[in-house]
Amino acid sequence: MSDSRARKASQAVLLASADDTEASFYEAMQRADLDRMMGVWADDDEIACVHPSGPRVVGPVAVRAGFEAIFVNGPVQVSIHQVRRLESGTAAVHHVIERVQAESPEGTQTAYILATNVYMRTALGWRMVLHHASPGQPHDMQEVAEPATMLH
Amino acid sequence: MSDSRARKASQAVLLASADDTEASFYEAMQRADLDRMMGVWADDDEIACVHPSGPRVVGPVAVRAGFEAIFVNGPVQVSIHQVRRLESGTAAVHHVIERVQAESPEGTQTAYILATNVYMRTALGWRMVLHHASPGQPHDMQEVAEPATMLH
Repeated sequence: MSDSRARKASQAVLLASADDTEASFYEAMQRADLDRMMGVWADDDEIACVHPSGPRVVGPVAVRAGFEAIFVNGPVQVSIHQVRRLESGTAAVHHVIERVQAESPEGTQTAYILATNVYMRTALGWRMVLHHASPGQPHDMQEVAEPATMLH
Repeated sequence: MSDSRARKASQAVLLASADDTEASFYEAMQRADLDRMMGVWADDDEIACVHPSGPRVVGPVAVRAGFEAIFVNGPVQVSIHQVRRLESGTAAVHHVIERVQAESPEGTQTAYILATNVYMRTALGWRMVLHHASPGQPHDMQEVAEPATMLH
């Protein structure tokens, strides 16, 4: 119990901002570190995760099982391409473009993923409550921020 | 100006909760009502929308253009299948399963969509800041809430 409390206290320090929590999330992906990954998430039955093209995975047990299945293949070569932030006092919404690389017989494959990460401020620091990821576009245009680029 | 103020005041009353705002969002879809749709969103450069299999659309002008392109085809036959809610004082995350029907030469087609809707409390009531929608699964299993159903 005291070990668990010490670990949680240390996480609370580490998760002092949504940016800190996001950095921990992607480090956990890069290291295939399941305990670190689950330390990032809020302890709430309604946390949810949508992996690219997957179903919605709801609750800590199912979210953990989902990442365990991903980490079976080892570390995920993911880097953050861009982050947009929207914040209220107790919550932060981050729009992230992830760049994921994977080795294949044809060489290194690169894919872009559109991720929405939502964090809420809890007694244990800022915790992730949502990771919703969709396959990005096959070309470089992952975002449309000007109507002209959409209409023409 | 006074018309605009009156309209905003009336919206603020209508958008007294995240659930009210969500109801307005889907009513706007069902009526292809672009003004009602944009009245639901926060006035913030970082609001974002990911339509199923689409890029990320960022900012009020681009979000409006995206819905305008959808509404060209008329009302969207969308109904809400399930809503899960996560709330903090100033933000609400809703995990929604949408059921969309479309007529085709082969008859009525039904598709499920996994949507994450995020609302923030503003001076004008609860406003949408994110709609991230992904194609659902081809079968009935849109969610995994128990690890056993994922692992076996």
